[in-house]
Amino acid sequence: MNKNLFVLFRKVAFCETDAMGVVHHANYLRYFEEARVAWLRERGLMNYHFPYAPVCFAVLESHCYHEKGPRFDDDLKIAVTVRREGLKIRFRYAIYSQTGEQRIATGETLLVPVDEKIKPVRLKKEFMAQLENESWIETWPLSL
Amino acid sequence: MNKNLFVLFRKVAFCETDAMGVVHHANYLRYFEEARVAWLRERGLMNYHFPYAPVCFAVLESHCYHEKGPRFDDDLKIAVTVRREGLKIRFRYAIYSQTGEQRIATGETLLVPVDEKIKPVRLKKEFMAQLENESWIETWPLSL
Amino acid sequence: MNKNLFVLFRKVAFCETDAMGVVHHANYLRYFEEARVAWLRERGLMNYHFPYAPVCFAVLESHCYHEKGPRFDDDLKIAVTVRREGLKIRFRYAIYSQTGEQRIATGETLLVPVDEKIKPVRLKKEFMAQLENESWIETWPLSL
Amino acid sequence: MNKNLFVLFRKVAFCETDAMGVVHHANYLRYFEEARVAWLRERGLMNYHFPYAPVCFAVLESHCYHEKGPRFDDDLKIAVTVRREGLKIRFRYAIYSQTGEQRIATGETLLVPVDEKIKPVRLKKEFMAQLENESWIETWPLSL
Repeated sequence: MNKNLFVLFRKVAFCETDAMGVVHHANYLRYFEEARVAWLRERGLMNYHFPYAPVCFAVLESHCYHEKGPRFDDDLKIAVTVRREGLKIRFRYAIYSQTGEQRIATGETLLVPVDEKIKPVRLKKEFMAQLENESWIETWPLSL
Repeated sequence: MNKNLFVLFRKVAFCETDAMGVVHHANYLRYFEEARVAWLRERGLMNYHFPYAPVCFAVLESHCYHEKGPRFDDDLKIAVTVRREGLKIRFRYAIYSQTGEQRIATGETLLVPVDEKIKPVRLKKEFMAQLENESWIETWPLSL
Repeated sequence: MNKNLFVLFRKVAFCETDAMGVVHHANYLRYFEEARVAWLRERGLMNYHFPYAPVCFAVLESHCYHEKGPRFDDDLKIAVTVRREGLKIRFRYAIYSQTGEQRIATGETLLVPVDEKIKPVRLKKEFMAQLENESWIETWPLSL
Repeated sequence: MNKNLFVLFRKVAFCETDAMGVVHHANYLRYFEEARVAWLRERGLMNYHFPYAPVCFAVLESHCYHEKGPRFDDDLKIAVTVRREGLKIRFRYAIYSQTGEQRIATGETLLVPVDEKIKPVRLKKEFMAQLENESWIETWPLSL
């Protein structure tokens, strides 16, 4: 894998499963958010985010494509790629089993920075500069 | 609105909001599911669904487009249109404020019936017959 | 049952179940909150609550005693009794199957009104007056 | 702190906050569960738990006492103490800020092992032996 690619590891919690024994599909958006926040933290961008700054990221769109249903205690590996699109930021995600052999799901979210009144605002220069450094992977396996 | 169109009314619960004061985006997939289940119930199809039958509906894809963030205690009106696509079923959703003046979000999910081992199965004839009676709205306002 | 007793009916949503096939225990606190808010609404007290007033109810304590695990689509009947205890408000809950034959769970929460900075504030007189009208049931079946 | 005391560190996720800007109270039961599962894993007891064994732990009671509301991205330190009580297991939890200076909440849950039909079963000897090795802290700060 690309060495600049951000990856988060986490386990499936019991409360995230449903009566079919697998992760409930609404929780994937929580996994994506968790990976997004972990990316911000790792890239040193948390001080541009609420509550450290009066800016939050509103989700404009979210998409998820499911390939396999993980179960309680399964190890997940969540890869993230990100780029700026004008005033917006697009994140793509791919969730794999820990070994990377099995793909669980892919997805993307489109976000826009907003203030406390949920009005769109501009990103700070330092934030945009970091986005320029990210490797965007065009061949990301979205099942579009 | 089309008289055959299924509509569910529900209020925003406090636990569904986040620190920005609006509904957390992962909860829209729960709203969609709730509308989907209410549609099954209203159409008399719950006996083709787990736990009444050994069949559940696995979500293959989910998409959500956000237009406005509803707040605690807001009244939501969730409209549903549905059609069969081979072995799969596509649901489209549109969430409005109670008066219908403000659109909150739109979205869709693609589902497939699966057995307890999460293996795809065929839908029963009576279920498919009901799907034939549904009005599919091509001009559904998906912000694609 | 006491005719003044507030009761909320609701069904178990699919996303509220876990891999054991029953409602995940954390969701009972959501059911209690939903019953509490429905009680406020029915008693005409929502205008003393955030976001209609700058007051919210912080949960100081919560307790839940489980007797049976409800499943997807089960009908729940949630009874509520409430009283003022100085600056605090105590709610007790009992969840039954729809027919009332089977008790699912009981519980209580102790709350205090707080402002937007989470500082305790006094309840308005009209709110306290309504609390005086409530029937408190000493023999509430808490499995203490 | 007691060196045998199990401690889990985790951050507050954005989706765990509510419109008051703090962690929604139902999520504490999820934190407790997460700490409980992490304890099982650290003690080498996951192979006595579903899905590795046909045994799950049903929650009979849960209690939570709130002292302060943590916000998004706050670091939490969750301490656990556990003992056997006949066929049941009692866990006590205390959540602190990362430095340990501020106590966030305390709580306890009483559990019983159950089979897939939610019928109580006996714990395996090796599991009980591990429970004998745990330090139970009588002076645990439950705000009872």
